[in-house]
Amino acid sequence: MLKIAYLYGKFGTMIPESTISEALGSLFTNIEFQKEPAGLYDPLRYMIEIGGKRIRPRLCLTTYGIFADQLGPHILEPAAGLEVFHTFTLIHDDIMDRSPLRRGHDTVWKRWDEDTAILSGDVMCIDAYKRIAQAPAAVLPEALKLFSKTASEVCDGQQMDMDFERRDNVPMKEYMTMIGLKTGVLIACAAQMGALIAGADKWSQDCLYQYGYYLGLAFQVADDYLDAYGDEKVFGKPIGGDILNCKKSWLTIRAQEKGAEGIIEALNAPADTPEEKAAKIARVKALYDSVGVADDARKAIGDLSTRAIFKGTDARMGADGHEALRAFANSLVGRTV
Amino acid sequence: MLKIAYLYGKFGTMIPESTISEALGSLFTNIEFQKEPAGLYDPLRYMIEIGGKRIRPRLCLTTYGIFADQLGPHILEPAAGLEVFHTFTLIHDDIMDRSPLRRGHDTVWKRWDEDTAILSGDVMCIDAYKRIAQAPAAVLPEALKLFSKTASEVCDGQQMDMDFERRDNVPMKEYMTMIGLKTGVLIACAAQMGALIAGADKWSQDCLYQYGYYLGLAFQVADDYLDAYGDEKVFGKPIGGDILNCKKSWLTIRAQEKGAEGIIEALNAPADTPEEKAAKIARVKALYDSVGVADDARKAIGDLSTRAIFKGTDARMGADGHEALRAFANSLVGRTV
Repeated sequence: MLKIAYLYGKFGTMIPESTISEALGSLFTNIEFQKEPAGLYDPLRYMIEIGGKRIRPRLCLTTYGIFADQLGPHILEPAAGLEVFHTFTLIHDDIMDRSPLRRGHDTVWKRWDEDTAILSGDVMCIDAYKRIAQAPAAVLPEALKLFSKTASEVCDGQQMDMDFERRDNVPMKEYMTMIGLKTGVLIACAAQMGALIAGADKWSQDCLYQYGYYLGLAFQVADDYLDAYGDEKVFGKPIGGDILNCKKSWLTIRAQEKGAEGIIEALNAPADTPEEKAAKIARVKALYDSVGVADDARKAIGDLSTRAIFKGTDARMGADGHEALRAFANSLVGRTV
Repeated sequence: MLKIAYLYGKFGTMIPESTISEALGSLFTNIEFQKEPAGLYDPLRYMIEIGGKRIRPRLCLTTYGIFADQLGPHILEPAAGLEVFHTFTLIHDDIMDRSPLRRGHDTVWKRWDEDTAILSGDVMCIDAYKRIAQAPAAVLPEALKLFSKTASEVCDGQQMDMDFERRDNVPMKEYMTMIGLKTGVLIACAAQMGALIAGADKWSQDCLYQYGYYLGLAFQVADDYLDAYGDEKVFGKPIGGDILNCKKSWLTIRAQEKGAEGIIEALNAPADTPEEKAAKIARVKALYDSVGVADDARKAIGDLSTRAIFKGTDARMGADGHEALRAFANSLVGRTV
């Protein structure tokens, strides 16, 4: 399905980051989907083209590159499958969340219609499996088991997230479980998948799964934090989106936990005009600030990220591997801590 | 995932139909899905419980039983996966087609809501893959390739079907391509999957794929025919549903092809009261009758079914196998020819 040349790690046994970046660029520039019926496959190309950070395939190739030195379709296709699966969940989530924008572009249901978004998402989920199925036969049953378990957990997470919308009091523990399912497990799966396909031992695979899981949590808390406190140019979307969408983020739940009075009312308040919107964002952020949740968030991100590295570096690998895990974590959440 | 005892074919090398029926009964009575979040998994249980004819797993076990004599999870789980996948497509199709009823019960989006139907469908598609992945490791890559190819073709078929709704003139050839994708390929996949997992040679697998494909076409034309000319008690749903839903069926396309004047206007005419509905059904059926499409449909079903058997019996198997293929075809479309 992908036109891609075999690429080789050129410096010793570990595949260098530059080779991985080059492979990723080629992977998604040349990605191919079926051509007909166009109504079904155009949204797939559109969603891949509008980009994203390719976190999951990059992590998959990074952990693979710690244990193996040769890239090829046996790893590139499953890595692409993780991104395709992630994109499928975004298409369906955007319908359920009624989100009009994604990465600054119209969402699929908004640009086409809901039916197209449902069916194109379905075919994208199937496409993800086609790519995962290209893992080497020797590890295929395990790769599929890991992927399918993860995939259904991501759906569980989305269901929990929707259930939370109807509740005004979600304990932090439940919130962390939800983001663990919705975001953590797929990043964990990516980290383990690379090691599994590279032939790493089970212990190391498990360590890398844990690395991905805690890194995924750190990444989601950072996303919640940056939504309120980030730099719009760096963050890539307008600040205050979660607040305007009345979305209970890590910040809200932490503020509630610390007794910030009126936080739920402030979050649920309607805001239509630009002035009302700005006032709502300011009011909610003032409540966050009154109990110091921004500092708490930065600390939580740092702790989760440290925990991730602690878990990951317990895997059987050399100092180069440790450095690769640290560098990846830093690229993902370093700007917030 | 399934609590099921190993079952053995008791009479010679072929597994008798009674053993297959017993295994199927047990398979879907005891089928297990995850328990939590309940909002996500209740619709899966609901859809499996309201039943259906289990055509796809039955055919899969039937072709398996021609080449192998021992049932077990390696074949029962993939067979169940085919039914789970089919059910997933029904859940999503019902949203897109705005169908309120399925097998006499509320559809999932009607009973719960659209978001639940989208997400429960997604998790059901993933569950189907979990079951297909339990095929023996030796044939797993092939089984997955067959299944994923089929699964995306089914989506292509649904897209074509929706595209047809906006067109007033669909040639019969395109209609047959559409039902081939929407219905034919999954039944074909079921027939091949059983043979593949039983270890049958590639030639025989291909013959059985063709058998399933043409049988699927016959089954869909029969469904279109019975929707207008069937006995409500036997058919299991009210007669004239396609007509009231302005759905271009095989009958409409054949009538158009034979120059039945005003057929599209009659089909697209609104009908609200019970009297208007009865009058609309009578008017469309009178137009069908004026050009004799009922006879044509019965002939087409007979021809397709004969062709299916002709293809299937070309596989390398004994007279018992031929008889099993004939009996299955007869049970599926025998009542209409």
